[in-house]
Amino acid sequence: MMAVVIHNACLLPIDDVMSVREDGWVHVEGDAIAAVGTGPAPCPDGAEMIDAGGDVVMPGLVNPHAHLPMTLFRGLGEDVDDRLFRYVLPMERKFVTPEMVRVGTLLGAYESIEGGVTTIADMYYFEAEVGRALDEAGLRGVVGQTIADFDPPDHKTVDDGFRLVDDLAAAFAGHPRILASIAPHAPYSTDVPVMARVARWADANPGVPVQIHLAEMDSEMEWCRKHHGLRPVAVVEKAGLLRPGLIAAHCLYVDDGEIERMARADVRVAHNARSNAKAGRGIAPVEAMRAAGIPVGIGTDGPMSGNTLDLFSQFGPVSMFQKLLGHSRKPMPAREVIRMATLEGARVLGLDHRIGSLVPGKKADLIRIDLSAPRTQPIYDVYATLIFAAMPSDVRDVMVDGRWIMRERQVQTLERKRVLRDAGQIAATFKAEMARIDGAG
Amino acid sequence: MMAVVIHNACLLPIDDVMSVREDGWVHVEGDAIAAVGTGPAPCPDGAEMIDAGGDVVMPGLVNPHAHLPMTLFRGLGEDVDDRLFRYVLPMERKFVTPEMVRVGTLLGAYESIEGGVTTIADMYYFEAEVGRALDEAGLRGVVGQTIADFDPPDHKTVDDGFRLVDDLAAAFAGHPRILASIAPHAPYSTDVPVMARVARWADANPGVPVQIHLAEMDSEMEWCRKHHGLRPVAVVEKAGLLRPGLIAAHCLYVDDGEIERMARADVRVAHNARSNAKAGRGIAPVEAMRAAGIPVGIGTDGPMSGNTLDLFSQFGPVSMFQKLLGHSRKPMPAREVIRMATLEGARVLGLDHRIGSLVPGKKADLIRIDLSAPRTQPIYDVYATLIFAAMPSDVRDVMVDGRWIMRERQVQTLERKRVLRDAGQIAATFKAEMARIDGAG
Repeated sequence: MMAVVIHNACLLPIDDVMSVREDGWVHVEGDAIAAVGTGPAPCPDGAEMIDAGGDVVMPGLVNPHAHLPMTLFRGLGEDVDDRLFRYVLPMERKFVTPEMVRVGTLLGAYESIEGGVTTIADMYYFEAEVGRALDEAGLRGVVGQTIADFDPPDHKTVDDGFRLVDDLAAAFAGHPRILASIAPHAPYSTDVPVMARVARWADANPGVPVQIHLAEMDSEMEWCRKHHGLRPVAVVEKAGLLRPGLIAAHCLYVDDGEIERMARADVRVAHNARSNAKAGRGIAPVEAMRAAGIPVGIGTDGPMSGNTLDLFSQFGPVSMFQKLLGHSRKPMPAREVIRMATLEGARVLGLDHRIGSLVPGKKADLIRIDLSAPRTQPIYDVYATLIFAAMPSDVRDVMVDGRWIMRERQVQTLERKRVLRDAGQIAATFKAEMARIDGAG
Repeated sequence: MMAVVIHNACLLPIDDVMSVREDGWVHVEGDAIAAVGTGPAPCPDGAEMIDAGGDVVMPGLVNPHAHLPMTLFRGLGEDVDDRLFRYVLPMERKFVTPEMVRVGTLLGAYESIEGGVTTIADMYYFEAEVGRALDEAGLRGVVGQTIADFDPPDHKTVDDGFRLVDDLAAAFAGHPRILASIAPHAPYSTDVPVMARVARWADANPGVPVQIHLAEMDSEMEWCRKHHGLRPVAVVEKAGLLRPGLIAAHCLYVDDGEIERMARADVRVAHNARSNAKAGRGIAPVEAMRAAGIPVGIGTDGPMSGNTLDLFSQFGPVSMFQKLLGHSRKPMPAREVIRMATLEGARVLGLDHRIGSLVPGKKADLIRIDLSAPRTQPIYDVYATLIFAAMPSDVRDVMVDGRWIMRERQVQTLERKRVLRDAGQIAATFKAEMARIDGAG
């Protein structure tokens, strides 16, 4: 069994007090963390010894909400107000195939690795392809097959959708890194009877995470009011889906009573600061949700909405938005942001017993970050540096499940040229289609 | 005279329609742009020919508001609510010396160059040191000597302050890149008689920019109300300082009438999105100010407030904040953000006749940006990519006044090791002082 000892690190184990352990070390055996400490490091026989030279070593970042294949749509129609109906929906119907999903996921996976993300929860179509691509990339993933009643690209009927979910669960049963998940799209696109069926399916398949978009936008509020006389959280509740472990993305429009009910139901939230703000939708009440005991992770959403898949570009917004809401410098301090991006994100996915902190027995998902650039100096509080000055390009090494998937900025699992070439070919098709749509008026 | 031709570029000249010129070239002679075009490039005798390989070539970024020496305070007391009075003011009084200003400016200059910023407007103390350091770095600068009546580190009396301004103006008279400026601190710290004296000084010294902090915070509103029964803009107006070319930083609390008066007075604004949000202060009405005809540039503020000196980390917030204010995806489209960061920023500084766009006759301040990373692909709209996906580390080459100050990510003018070592020594002093303050309770 391969052993690795990383020493002379600024270790951030992510414990209760968010301690910073200078001259720290972590000892990895096989796929797991064997020990962590400070001072002289152990030198087990045959272990790879790595001097981190004072670099930060911390748990890999956890992205609890993404649509990786949509990386191929990044920046498409950015400033076009009706881009969803003009470009996105018609193009998804026409171009979303298993191959497009594979290629888009690999591009997104490459970016995620370079940005220090080690676990991603995805929800899209042909999700088994997402699982296979994440597996190839060496990442950890929660792959959610979307169920929706708007005739999405991969299932004509809800029955077909559930068949895809069953197939996905079977395909990744027992996989060490890829966990199948079921993803009812949203209250407005997966109506109450379908959500109720998802709840029954989840009862019959314990341990399978359920992902949903919830309380994200005005039109959703309006739809729920019109069709059910309720707000989105109540619609999900009515369907029996406000249940332990539900991963609810967005949650912008939740009031104190709803937050209380979500907390009692043990629902978890994936906050997508950039995506919500770029759409002009608003700021989720993250401080209030966390104060009520709801775990909140930091998601990127799809790169069409949030543009990047690294968490560093989310950190500033996550912190700033809560300070704006609170009209004070105090809310959402830097260490809380890092907590959300690691251990709390893992808890959102129900994986905090396996990942999210550097604790003996947990899986060895960790990253090394070089903060020696003039841009990140001096350092008075390493958490502040990580939140407001560090960038994906500062991530140097990435390990998942005890395996190095990036060393010295070189991704080990995917071939950069091939990933870019395949993505470029599909993007060229999309550009031609945009030109056709624009030409047709 | 040295000639450089950069060809095969994705050229963003920053013209009226924000055109994107594929297969573009720019021809530099000496310190100026001789010609720009597309297709086959000229090959003047002895010119350095550079194949940009499809990289973006655009004007250097303009940062209209910074406090470069404060780079040494970056992240200090980040989450401490009373950090201003607990740490910053006592430490500024104790530690701000010409040497500290020199070292902090060099660190900030290094970061600025690496982030593609070619022009910086600074306001701080011992400002002649800032000018000399920016000159050494090869950057373009507007260096503003602060005048304040709170006994700041470099002048005991206002008379002394004006002497520093006179000395500064004399020291950089005729300098090709460094322009002296006078910087009354803010309405609450540079009272009406002093601001009136600044206005008279500015009358006697045409062409010297005036910089001020304006309408930035609650306590300022309260101070102006209490002492003058007015809002900050009116206080500045009363002092005769609401004048053509005034560079007003922040301007969060300005109503429609004030915006109208500022526009009529030909005042310009430096918007500091991250700094304002991190302090929980709010969002400046940038769309409204620009709609009224006020030029608005994108500033970083000091790295104690905004943490970085690159504009890329400001771009997302600048755009998102206006979308949040407008509750729509439409406000502040990507190309407008890039316009603000270049030509409009130059106009804020009164330098738009010399820099800010790639036009024959203007000074050759330009940058080359490599957008080939998986993180920035695919590209449907290069402005969207620059705003929401590009990072400082994507900047490859930087030219100021016809001189390369960064080539292939290597800063040519400053020695990285020395800059970091000197900064580290001063930061160690600051850390010891923080420990002393914390120990003293």
